[in-house]
Amino acid sequence: MSGKKIIVQKYGGTSVGTTERIKAVAERIKGYVGKGYSVVVVVSAMGHTTDTLVDLAGQITKNPDKREMDMLLSTGEQVSISLLAMALHETGVDAISYTGSQIRVITDGNFSNAKIESISPERIMQSLDEGRVVIVAGFQGIDANENITTLGRGGSDTSAVALAAVLKTRDCEIYTDVEGVYTADPRIIDRTKKLKEISYDEMLELARLGAAVLHSRSVEFAKKYNIKLHVRSSFNYEEGTIVMPKEEMMERFVISGVTSKTNEAKITLRDIPDKPGIAAQLFKLLGENKLYVNMIVQSTGKDNKASISFTVLKNDLPRARDLCEKIKSDLKATGIDFKEDIAIVSAVGVGMLSSYGVAGRMFQVLSEHGINIEMISTSEIGISCVIDSMYAELAMKAIHKEFLEAEKYVC
Amino acid sequence: MSGKKIIVQKYGGTSVGTTERIKAVAERIKGYVGKGYSVVVVVSAMGHTTDTLVDLAGQITKNPDKREMDMLLSTGEQVSISLLAMALHETGVDAISYTGSQIRVITDGNFSNAKIESISPERIMQSLDEGRVVIVAGFQGIDANENITTLGRGGSDTSAVALAAVLKTRDCEIYTDVEGVYTADPRIIDRTKKLKEISYDEMLELARLGAAVLHSRSVEFAKKYNIKLHVRSSFNYEEGTIVMPKEEMMERFVISGVTSKTNEAKITLRDIPDKPGIAAQLFKLLGENKLYVNMIVQSTGKDNKASISFTVLKNDLPRARDLCEKIKSDLKATGIDFKEDIAIVSAVGVGMLSSYGVAGRMFQVLSEHGINIEMISTSEIGISCVIDSMYAELAMKAIHKEFLEAEKYVC
Repeated sequence: MSGKKIIVQKYGGTSVGTTERIKAVAERIKGYVGKGYSVVVVVSAMGHTTDTLVDLAGQITKNPDKREMDMLLSTGEQVSISLLAMALHETGVDAISYTGSQIRVITDGNFSNAKIESISPERIMQSLDEGRVVIVAGFQGIDANENITTLGRGGSDTSAVALAAVLKTRDCEIYTDVEGVYTADPRIIDRTKKLKEISYDEMLELARLGAAVLHSRSVEFAKKYNIKLHVRSSFNYEEGTIVMPKEEMMERFVISGVTSKTNEAKITLRDIPDKPGIAAQLFKLLGENKLYVNMIVQSTGKDNKASISFTVLKNDLPRARDLCEKIKSDLKATGIDFKEDIAIVSAVGVGMLSSYGVAGRMFQVLSEHGINIEMISTSEIGISCVIDSMYAELAMKAIHKEFLEAEKYVC
Repeated sequence: MSGKKIIVQKYGGTSVGTTERIKAVAERIKGYVGKGYSVVVVVSAMGHTTDTLVDLAGQITKNPDKREMDMLLSTGEQVSISLLAMALHETGVDAISYTGSQIRVITDGNFSNAKIESISPERIMQSLDEGRVVIVAGFQGIDANENITTLGRGGSDTSAVALAAVLKTRDCEIYTDVEGVYTADPRIIDRTKKLKEISYDEMLELARLGAAVLHSRSVEFAKKYNIKLHVRSSFNYEEGTIVMPKEEMMERFVISGVTSKTNEAKITLRDIPDKPGIAAQLFKLLGENKLYVNMIVQSTGKDNKASISFTVLKNDLPRARDLCEKIKSDLKATGIDFKEDIAIVSAVGVGMLSSYGVAGRMFQVLSEHGINIEMISTSEIGISCVIDSMYAELAMKAIHKEFLEAEKYVC
């Protein structure tokens, strides 16, 4: 054992998008080696490689076998790890690349969306002890029969966190093309702030509500193994955002992020006699048909009649509509309304746990701007409102200003 | 055990150069499945994939690490096997792809030019028994530590032959972009004939002397394991050429091929005192400097002085020249001549073993066309002459006409 501090770094597709970028990443890694770190690097496929491979498969079949698709896609990362190893050698740093198979990233057999079950640290530790940078292909593993599997969206982040866990380090850097986690999408809100820290739960809630910086599975993994994820840019040396246990956070905002999702549609079943089992009957049917349902609100009106509103992905609306029409008479609903032009605007923050009146302030802000709230749902650390999509930007800006642009925002 | 007849088919880069070609190959394989064969397919990387990958590495370093280069290049075949499996599924044929690692193609650790030591047939046999076409990535294996290795030039042919050996079948088809083995290069000689059969030794001699259809290692392997190699085109259904034991051949020509090589240069050291050890001293020096020497001729002149002529690759001429100048005085040579504009024209045929006067006829033909012979060397089944390169085509045509275009050519 060298006794050096191990750091795991993950570089995404944009960070290694060209051979020039790969050389730049090698220089960055060299800097960490110079500081005395044992560096384990996880790399994604270069830039648009995955798209190109998917397109090749698409030229052959509309329904590619999932095992063969994983065989195909896993080549993307294998190309980047070998090139990065060469680039490190070129800077004078010893390095060795490993596929998922070579370091026994064992997953279940769920092709295209496999889950990591174990990783063998021995070979990595040996290479680190020999003074090498270890470069690992992200996104991939093998099942118990040595079939190649891939981990699905955000898979390379998950690979990095899993490696940090088995290598028993808390230091995991996720290099991406943004500089960290912002209080809102900087393309929409001008005065966004980059967060220094954010808790696992907030990050998960943000991911669920539309912020795409990190995929949920990697954050869940990090939470489970208590790993600090430093999300930062590979294009400069600025500090990014550290995703960490909320107990260790130095600063906490009442809310830490505002998001908006416009890829869902709303369905309302009106005037259903309010008796037990109605909601169960409806959502069981939708679930059996593999429809993803996000928000659900049930309200009781006059004469003991209820209405149930829920949101589904816009792509699923036709199917959801058919199912609702089918079950309408069973439920004795008098009508069904559909609305596609909706936005789900959300505020997320662990500060809500200890601050009263956050929801009220949010509704007030929307009301002051003449925005009608069509549905509300809340979780421990998030509040979501369905509004007309034409007001999505305005709502985000107003909520962001209220909670994040004043001096009073720290809880 | 299904008891079906196993056939191994290898498709080269041009045969799977596009997704359209991959679909065509799938249809061809389907035909063999329909005829009741258990089919094992070895595939090369698509078209220019390998060049593209080499170019990527070249953008990063002039001296890529060989292990990392093999890691990089082996992705090419992994792409083609998965796409071919998908194409077979699309035609309704069950198929599964395997990397070299997955079927334990164990090689030595000589990266970029590894030799196959063993292959495990179990997984392939199981998949065949399940009624599947098995698609294997050619050109690649793993060493004892699971590092990915590649087999060097012609590696996919070697993979195919090795698979035929472990699967205990003699049937191995090598699909390429030519229709078989010809008596000479059809781009130079109009009246070439496609050979129905050729012996292993002739094929090896032709490869050594410049014919590029099959790489030597795969032919040596086939000879050792007594496998019939059917070299044919994937672009039509014509019979090609079968490389086989000479004892089984139905027809035998006095000579079966004429070749010409123009990538070598001739060096002559004149007037060396003829005493033991002179040649050894010279070629030991060249060998120590890793110079490939092809033909060597030593002749004794008057006054007990000898001259030694030999050929090296043109690229190596500057290095060879320097070494000769260095050793010239030790050898007491009076002069050194160099000639770049040479061709080595050869005739190859097992028929020479049982026919007298082949060499004499060849020299006579050259002389009738006014072509001066500068060096001669012979093997059991081949005769090579160094001539001025301006006569290369003429010499080939004349020899081809003498031995292969008359009725008298069968021995």
